[in-house]
Amino acid sequence: MAAPYTLVLLRHGHSLWNEKGLFTGWVDVGLTEKGKAEGKRAGELIRDSGIKPDILYTSLLTRAIETANFALTEADRLWIEVKRSWRLNERHYGDLQGKDKAATLAEYGQEQFMIWRRSFDVPPPPIADDNPYSQANDPRYADLGPDLPKTEALSNVIDRMLPYWEIEMKPQLRAGRTLLVVAHGNSLRALVKHLDGISDEDIAELNLPTGIPLVYRLDENFTPLVAGGEYLDPEAAAAGAAAVAAQGKK
Amino acid sequence: MAAPYTLVLLRHGHSLWNEKGLFTGWVDVGLTEKGKAEGKRAGELIRDSGIKPDILYTSLLTRAIETANFALTEADRLWIEVKRSWRLNERHYGDLQGKDKAATLAEYGQEQFMIWRRSFDVPPPPIADDNPYSQANDPRYADLGPDLPKTEALSNVIDRMLPYWEIEMKPQLRAGRTLLVVAHGNSLRALVKHLDGISDEDIAELNLPTGIPLVYRLDENFTPLVAGGEYLDPEAAAAGAAAVAAQGKK
Repeated sequence: MAAPYTLVLLRHGHSLWNEKGLFTGWVDVGLTEKGKAEGKRAGELIRDSGIKPDILYTSLLTRAIETANFALTEADRLWIEVKRSWRLNERHYGDLQGKDKAATLAEYGQEQFMIWRRSFDVPPPPIADDNPYSQANDPRYADLGPDLPKTEALSNVIDRMLPYWEIEMKPQLRAGRTLLVVAHGNSLRALVKHLDGISDEDIAELNLPTGIPLVYRLDENFTPLVAGGEYLDPEAAAAGAAAVAAQGKK
Repeated sequence: MAAPYTLVLLRHGHSLWNEKGLFTGWVDVGLTEKGKAEGKRAGELIRDSGIKPDILYTSLLTRAIETANFALTEADRLWIEVKRSWRLNERHYGDLQGKDKAATLAEYGQEQFMIWRRSFDVPPPPIADDNPYSQANDPRYADLGPDLPKTEALSNVIDRMLPYWEIEMKPQLRAGRTLLVVAHGNSLRALVKHLDGISDEDIAELNLPTGIPLVYRLDENFTPLVAGGEYLDPEAAAAGAAAVAAQGKK
């Protein structure tokens, strides 16, 4: 059966806090020069693939928006429709936001560290409203009220991301539009888990590389024709995923 | 009476074809380094003014979108809602698109040149579909069908821009949102003409500077509290407007 729908996922490029080794979550940091170059490279890959996104989805975080803008500039599609939602944000890292990853590992040990990084449903401790890395006073989330997360596990990300997939994205695909979703390791992991039917246990092992477009061709039931989708640069994607996996083991 | 509504207009910065002295219209050219700097400066002015746009409107042309992205990055508002429309595009310059301004002036003379540049309702000759600077095959306008302009006078720009103001923008203002509109000399002139009630004759003399945010505070009838609005950098705006006016007299 032919795949009527095309969905392109893109994880944002290298950010200033990736560079510093800090837990980021919902803290709004920009891209490094390397991250900007990743965005441009992603746009070249999209352009050369012949895939023409009709609508862009991003989180409300600058590193995703900038990655998308660099990519669409290269793909000559900067003019397409844009929708942004906090539901595509990175996982909220709770009280770990702004903390040094290596120092956190040293302080709490490998086991606790990996639970916070990779547990399906155990979130880090919640962030206090007066923590400078809290989003309690960030105007972009003013409409969320009590829905504003103070910490999240992957299960929480799934709970707030999937309604957006169902209500907003699927109708656009049904209308024949090609979607580009530029977001984050965990919000994209949530979507991939849903599309590919990955178990709660196995999803922890899935490492999405940054800056490499991942193309899903979906049938009319939104089932991927190729499980796991297809990267536009498979060699770079494999190397990138290995690098992300190694990051968690440092 | 207090002004319930805030509208910020921004004309895109210096483009590659401004630099080359070519008629641009709907041809999609990027910004020069000077144009990018103008976008950043506009964002600094917005940030320092304390005005916080809630929603961005742009044309479908890269030079406006890039100007907006530079400005919103500086203003720390890259995450706001975005809407784009061809109805905010620059005036379509018809068969003049891609032609050298100085050569056109030399070929047709000052009188005809000024009619094409500043006449209220006399458009340049229409562009042929097979002209390389036509938008007949541009995918971003595929939905327009026979509404796709082949040339426009300012009167035509008003006819296609004002419905967008009425149907799309005014309801957003009524809902209490602050609007940032990043567009072009003629689409913004069309809006200013409407807001300030400028006559068909006088509008030709209005020269909007590039890169300087123009703030309109509007009462509940959408009447400006200050006719002509207020520039965030009045000295630079006056110098910029004089430079634009001189351009037409070269």
